[in-house]
Amino acid sequence: MPGLLEIKMARKMLEGNDELARRNRERFRSCGVRVVNLMSSPGAGKTALLEATLPWARDHLRVAVVEGDVATARDAQRIAALQVPVVQMNTAGACHLDAGMLADAVESLPLTDLDLLFVENVGNLVCPAAFDLGEDWRVVVLSVTEGADKPEKYPAVFRRADLCLLNKVDLLSHVDFDMEVFQAGLRSVQPGLPVLKVSARTGVGMEAWIQWLLGRLKPENPAGAGGNGFV
Amino acid sequence: MPGLLEIKMARKMLEGNDELARRNRERFRSCGVRVVNLMSSPGAGKTALLEATLPWARDHLRVAVVEGDVATARDAQRIAALQVPVVQMNTAGACHLDAGMLADAVESLPLTDLDLLFVENVGNLVCPAAFDLGEDWRVVVLSVTEGADKPEKYPAVFRRADLCLLNKVDLLSHVDFDMEVFQAGLRSVQPGLPVLKVSARTGVGMEAWIQWLLGRLKPENPAGAGGNGFV
Repeated sequence: MPGLLEIKMARKMLEGNDELARRNRERFRSCGVRVVNLMSSPGAGKTALLEATLPWARDHLRVAVVEGDVATARDAQRIAALQVPVVQMNTAGACHLDAGMLADAVESLPLTDLDLLFVENVGNLVCPAAFDLGEDWRVVVLSVTEGADKPEKYPAVFRRADLCLLNKVDLLSHVDFDMEVFQAGLRSVQPGLPVLKVSARTGVGMEAWIQWLLGRLKPENPAGAGGNGFV
Repeated sequence: MPGLLEIKMARKMLEGNDELARRNRERFRSCGVRVVNLMSSPGAGKTALLEATLPWARDHLRVAVVEGDVATARDAQRIAALQVPVVQMNTAGACHLDAGMLADAVESLPLTDLDLLFVENVGNLVCPAAFDLGEDWRVVVLSVTEGADKPEKYPAVFRRADLCLLNKVDLLSHVDFDMEVFQAGLRSVQPGLPVLKVSARTGVGMEAWIQWLLGRLKPENPAGAGGNGFV
């Protein structure tokens, strides 16, 4: 009965992960660093979005990045080119980051000297949603080229998100993306989830995204621990 | 040690799956039906590709479809609208189809009256690659909007494919897709993997894709069992 075995195993794995995520969260708070977990399908533009965000962000904040991938260090190389501290985590085939991997990754980062850590998860709209990393906020990125039906077809990742970035809106006129279907789908899985329309390539919407981050980073924000060095 | 547990559990699951896949394969051969396992990221266009393929295919072949999704029956509804027999398999959160799910799904299909069964896997470029379903051929679909680096970043699914359909080529002039990077990546993970450039939306490349299927379906093809009713 592979199905039953899978459920039992998954429960054990998730319990182990939850404990490690709790420790990560405590550690991040004691160091005064906030953490954003970026999730999406392969090719939705997470790395391009970081490339567009980081040049601005590092003028205001001390930032670093953890790059999760099944294979290669390509994304980390793109981030390193921006002179931002970055750690590549290769999962050796696994379909998501887990809290233990993130704990290992941040060993080589100066956490107490950081304000904000971006964690780019493995490109996968299913599995990463189940694994708490100890992050403060989950941001799901959907590109308009993927189609408007994705919130309903992949509900978990949208249900647990704090923000949805609708990326590649510069391509809207070239694809069949029904904005009403998309918004109705989001309402059915998580009413009230904020959505920002962005294009990492053209810069559209980047200011709103950055304002969202700044709003979250304010010391009075209940999700934060204060004293994070944000000025 | 969630990592170690995960490896042990994964091995047990895959062994159980392999046995069920072997039984599926025997059953499909005895019924004279060939099976194509379609895999891609969410939104790469698997369903649109089937919508473009089926009207032609059913003039020559007796076809049916199994639709795998985490949630919703949207894709099956799209296929049913074409008057093609279709079964929706919802995985209740799981990130891939497995051989046991496919065995359940085909219970309601008249296998002995079919020539070709398309199985649309869950949108996921990682997990489905590990699960043999008992299919004859694996077809990986990549859309140009996902970027040229995907074969190297998600090697398993490309390494085990029999064909790569590069979809949405009608958008090539609107995105930054480096064809040489893509081809070099493919060569590094599976030299010689055939690639067809297609657009499900415009119909470009559909004839070549159909010819590929017909070539595979010929009784003398070593992967086939003959007697599949193809004329």
